[in-house]
Amino acid sequence: MADLRLTDLHGSLTDRALNSMNFLNEISHHYPDAISLAAGRPTEEHFDLDDVHAYLRRFADHLREQGHDEPAVRRTILQYGRTKGIVHDLIARNLEVDEDILVEPESIVVTVGCQEAMLLTLRALRRDPADLLLAFSPSYVGITGAARLVDLPVVSVAEDDDLAVVVKSVRADGRRPRACYVMPDFANPSGLSLDLAARKRLLEVAAEQDLLLLEDNPYGLFPADGVDRMPTLKALDTDRRVVYLGSFAKTGLPGARVGYVVADQTVEAPDGSIGRLADELSKIKSMVTVNTSPVAQAVIGGKLLANDFSLVAANRRERQIYAANLRAITDGLAARFPGGEISWTVPSGGFFVVVTVPFPVDDVLLEKSAHEYGVLWTPMSHFYDGDTPIHALRLSCSSVTPTEIEVALDRLAALITDELVLSGAGKLDL
Amino acid sequence: MADLRLTDLHGSLTDRALNSMNFLNEISHHYPDAISLAAGRPTEEHFDLDDVHAYLRRFADHLREQGHDEPAVRRTILQYGRTKGIVHDLIARNLEVDEDILVEPESIVVTVGCQEAMLLTLRALRRDPADLLLAFSPSYVGITGAARLVDLPVVSVAEDDDLAVVVKSVRADGRRPRACYVMPDFANPSGLSLDLAARKRLLEVAAEQDLLLLEDNPYGLFPADGVDRMPTLKALDTDRRVVYLGSFAKTGLPGARVGYVVADQTVEAPDGSIGRLADELSKIKSMVTVNTSPVAQAVIGGKLLANDFSLVAANRRERQIYAANLRAITDGLAARFPGGEISWTVPSGGFFVVVTVPFPVDDVLLEKSAHEYGVLWTPMSHFYDGDTPIHALRLSCSSVTPTEIEVALDRLAALITDELVLSGAGKLDL
Repeated sequence: MADLRLTDLHGSLTDRALNSMNFLNEISHHYPDAISLAAGRPTEEHFDLDDVHAYLRRFADHLREQGHDEPAVRRTILQYGRTKGIVHDLIARNLEVDEDILVEPESIVVTVGCQEAMLLTLRALRRDPADLLLAFSPSYVGITGAARLVDLPVVSVAEDDDLAVVVKSVRADGRRPRACYVMPDFANPSGLSLDLAARKRLLEVAAEQDLLLLEDNPYGLFPADGVDRMPTLKALDTDRRVVYLGSFAKTGLPGARVGYVVADQTVEAPDGSIGRLADELSKIKSMVTVNTSPVAQAVIGGKLLANDFSLVAANRRERQIYAANLRAITDGLAARFPGGEISWTVPSGGFFVVVTVPFPVDDVLLEKSAHEYGVLWTPMSHFYDGDTPIHALRLSCSSVTPTEIEVALDRLAALITDELVLSGAGKLDL
Repeated sequence: MADLRLTDLHGSLTDRALNSMNFLNEISHHYPDAISLAAGRPTEEHFDLDDVHAYLRRFADHLREQGHDEPAVRRTILQYGRTKGIVHDLIARNLEVDEDILVEPESIVVTVGCQEAMLLTLRALRRDPADLLLAFSPSYVGITGAARLVDLPVVSVAEDDDLAVVVKSVRADGRRPRACYVMPDFANPSGLSLDLAARKRLLEVAAEQDLLLLEDNPYGLFPADGVDRMPTLKALDTDRRVVYLGSFAKTGLPGARVGYVVADQTVEAPDGSIGRLADELSKIKSMVTVNTSPVAQAVIGGKLLANDFSLVAANRRERQIYAANLRAITDGLAARFPGGEISWTVPSGGFFVVVTVPFPVDDVLLEKSAHEYGVLWTPMSHFYDGDTPIHALRLSCSSVTPTEIEVALDRLAALITDELVLSGAGKLDL
C-alpha cells in the first residue's frame, strides 16, 4: 500500500495545467537526440561563466560606490535580505531606459522569476470562490498553473471576444473578475502582438470596467528585423490599471531565476490607511521564498550596471539570433508547404510560430514525432482549457541553430505529410 | 479613492502571521542603532565574497569531472534547470555524512530556502476545508504563514499534550490532520530539543495514527559545548513517516536561498501507478518558482564539495561562536537576575533563549525597548495563536558579539527592572 493517495492531495496535482509542463519536460528527456522546436529557453550561444563572476564583482563595486563599507557589501550579497529585493532601484532604472516606464522602486518586488510574481499576484487577488481570472486564449500555461495553486478559476477570453462583454457577463453571474492576464508582445504561445489601438482599447475597457490588467512581457525586447518595439501597456497606463510582470530569464540570465512585479496600485486598509499592492505582495513573498537570492540578484544587478541599465543594448546579439531563426522557420515553412493546406503565423518578433494543420494535434502525435521523426514541438492543446481537439502546434526558434531548423523542418514536413495521408485530410500539393 | 481594498484581497494579508514578520522587520529598520537580540540570522563573522567565486568554480569543476563538456557545464549553471534541482545528489551525500540519513537523490526537491519547501508540502497536503495542520506550540511563524497562504488551519499542540489524543480528538470532529510540524533540535522559538525517547515516541504515534511528521531542522548542527548531536526523526524513520525540511541558510550561505525537502513517501494515483511525493511537490514547484536558481545551487554545491559533504566540518568556527554566545546570554542573565522572579531556558544548542517575566510582553513593549532602551528582542506572543497575553520574550545569540551581548543584557535588565516596578509585579532582589 502506498503512503499517500493522489486523490487526497490538492486538486491542482491532477489538473492538466500542472501535468502538461511535466509531460513536455519528460518527452524531451526521453528523446534527447530529437531536435527541439519545443523549448522556449533562450539561446546559449553567448553564455559565459566568467560573466557571472564579473557581474557579481560589478554589483559589489556598485555597493562600494554607494558608500557601503566592506561588511555591508558582504552582508547585502551574502546575508538574508530585504523581502522586496536589493536590485529594485536598478530595475526601476532599466524600466525607464528600455520601456519608458516610470515607477518608484518601492512599487517593485523582486521575485524568483516571473513565475513567483504571478503566484504572489494571484494569491493576493484571490479572496473567495466567486473570484476568477480572465486570460486571453490560448494562454501561457504558467499563469494557468499558478491560478490552480490558489484555487482561482481561469475564464478564457477568445481573441475576437469583446473583453467588456465577457466582464459584464461573468459579473452578471455573481462572479468577480479580479484581473485579465495578457501578453501583448509576441505572446507565448501565439506569437502574436497587440497593435497600438488594441492596447489603448484594452486600457479603456480596464478603466470602464474597473478591471486590473496583468501584463506579462518576457519577449518584448526581441522584435523581428525591421520591426519597431511597441509601448507596453504599463508605459501607456496613466491610471495604475496594470500590474507589470517582469522577467530576466530571456534578457538577463535564466540561471539567476530573477524576475519582478511592478505593483504600484494603492490598497486601502479597513482603518483607512493607504498602502501599496507591492507591500501586500511582499508579505506573501515572505511566506513563499522569504527573499530572492541576493547572490542571484547581484548577478542581474551587475549585468544591468554593466550595460548602463539597457537590456536592449545587452541583447543585440541575441535579438539578431532570434530574428534570423524566426525568419528561417517561417521561410522554411513557406518553402516546404507551398500549397496552402498548412498555415502558420508570421510573428513580428519573439520566439514562437504557430502552425495550423488539418488534423488534431495531441500528445500522442508529439510522442510519435519524437520517436519516429526526431523532432519535438508543443501541441497547442496545452494552452487551451477544455477537450476540444486543437489542430495546431507551436514551434520555438530560440534555442536552435539555423542548420538544426532546416533539419527539424524537414522532419516536421515528413510527419505532417504522413499524417495528412493517414488522416485522409487531403494531399499536399508537393 | 484607493485602487484596491485590503478586505477584497486574500484573508492571509490581514492575518497576524503575515504581519508579524513584517512588523518585526520594520522595528529593526526604525531602530538601526538598537542592539538586536531579535534577528535569527547567522553570524557574518566569516562571510567572504571570494568564497562565492571559489564555490562556483568548484561546482563547475565537479561537472567537468562528471564528464560534462564546456557547453554542458555552462548550460547546467546558466540555463533553466531541472525542477527538482541540480545539487540533489550532493545533498543526499551531505545527509548521509552529517545526519546518517539515507535517501535516494530523486526523493529530494531543491527549493528556494526551507520556506518554499514548507509551502510546497502544505500546498500538496491541503485538499479541502476539513484539512488541518498540527504544530507544536509555540511554533515557527514561517510554517503558520505558509499554512495561511494555502488556507490550511493550524491546530496548536501544547508541549505537554499527548499528540495521539489531539489527533483522535480532531478526527472525531470530522477534521483531517494532514501532518504534524515539529522542530526537534533547538527549536525556533523555544530553543528546546526533544530527547531520544520523545523522538521515538513521536514516530510511534505517527505510525499508530497514520500521521505524517514534518521535521524542520535549521539548527541541528549547532549544539552547545559538550553536547552531542541527537539523531533526527528522519534518521530514525524506518517507515517514511517523516517529510524532512532542510535549510542551508545557517549552514551554507543565507544569500544563496537554497533549501530542500526530502519527500520519499509513495503516492498512489487513481490508475494504480505509484509515484513519489517529491515528484508531486516538483509539479507544484514548477508553478511557484519553476526551479531554484542554478547559480545559487552551484554556490551551495561548491561548498558541499569543498568540505567533503560535511557541513559539520564547514561550520566548526560558527558552532564555536554560537555556543560561546549562547553561554554568554544564559550566564549574563544569571548574573543580572539572581533573584528568581525572572526565569529563562538554558538550551542545549541553537540560537534561542526564552526569558519568562511576570508581566505581559507585547509589541508596544518591544517598541519601548527599542526606542528608550536601545535593545531589540522578539515578543513570544508572535509564536502563539490567539490573544492570551504571553509573559515571555525570545533572545537570539546568532548575530551579535559577546560585547554586544553584555551591553544588550544591561539594557534588557534595565527595561525589565523598570517594568517590574511599573507593573507592581514585584521587586527584583538586586
